[in-house]
Amino acid sequence: MRRLQRITNCVLTKNDKALLLQKPSRGWWVAPGGKMELGESIKESAEREFREETGLQVENVNLRAVFTIVIVENDQPVNEWMMFTFQATSYKGQLFEQSPEGKLEWKNISEVAKLPMAAGDRHMFSHVLHDQGVMHGTFYYTTDFDLVSYRLSTE
Amino acid sequence: MRRLQRITNCVLTKNDKALLLQKPSRGWWVAPGGKMELGESIKESAEREFREETGLQVENVNLRAVFTIVIVENDQPVNEWMMFTFQATSYKGQLFEQSPEGKLEWKNISEVAKLPMAAGDRHMFSHVLHDQGVMHGTFYYTTDFDLVSYRLSTE
Repeated sequence: MRRLQRITNCVLTKNDKALLLQKPSRGWWVAPGGKMELGESIKESAEREFREETGLQVENVNLRAVFTIVIVENDQPVNEWMMFTFQATSYKGQLFEQSPEGKLEWKNISEVAKLPMAAGDRHMFSHVLHDQGVMHGTFYYTTDFDLVSYRLSTE
Repeated sequence: MRRLQRITNCVLTKNDKALLLQKPSRGWWVAPGGKMELGESIKESAEREFREETGLQVENVNLRAVFTIVIVENDQPVNEWMMFTFQATSYKGQLFEQSPEGKLEWKNISEVAKLPMAAGDRHMFSHVLHDQGVMHGTFYYTTDFDLVSYRLSTE
């Protein structure tokens, strides 16, 4: 298997809205983020990625979820990575009109569950937007990104 | 560089004591733990490793620190791994008389700072045993495990 990737992202919430990004490939909505670079802490990575994709400097940043993601093909694991999700509740700066990564939009928190997205992200957003504490878990996906199974627990 | 290793460990505290493990190699004291296995969540890994090394099932388990660790040789990074540290405040089971990994001992929390250990672990224990919240950071070590530099922040 390849060198293990580490993805960090951040859900910025303000009043009853969350800032999400729609990726052009599948039209799925995600929390802005991306790959950790060598030597970064997970928090530094999440803050840098968010700034690069939105123009905003997040504040009041807390870790809310840590997931192991396994891609399975013919019942065999073919890739594994980690996803670290933070929540921020305030920010500085001016939102990009155009993001290099897709379409940015403040979505009503009550509508996030209805947006097209990865099945695992639906669990992540449900936790981050509606519950307290840190969620831990593993998602097993096919190579087409269909969710096969998962285990979740909350601190 | 090699496939990125992920180490999970857990500081079990009870009253004014913490259960530590002395590794035979250098005589350094650590929080019991070890390497994540494919598909585990970080919490599952920490609980399994603690059980295998101590015989105890930890309870009230919370993530307290996430570190990136970089090994540097001739000013170049030669290895990088992640360390995920939990704290548990209660447990079930009977402590091993002999651990497969070293010497187990309940240490007074006030004496932990004086024990021989990796320099980064000193920061970790200071945070977990005396402060609240989640610590994030990066430690840069030489191949002889001398701490060269570090960055730390606390949520």
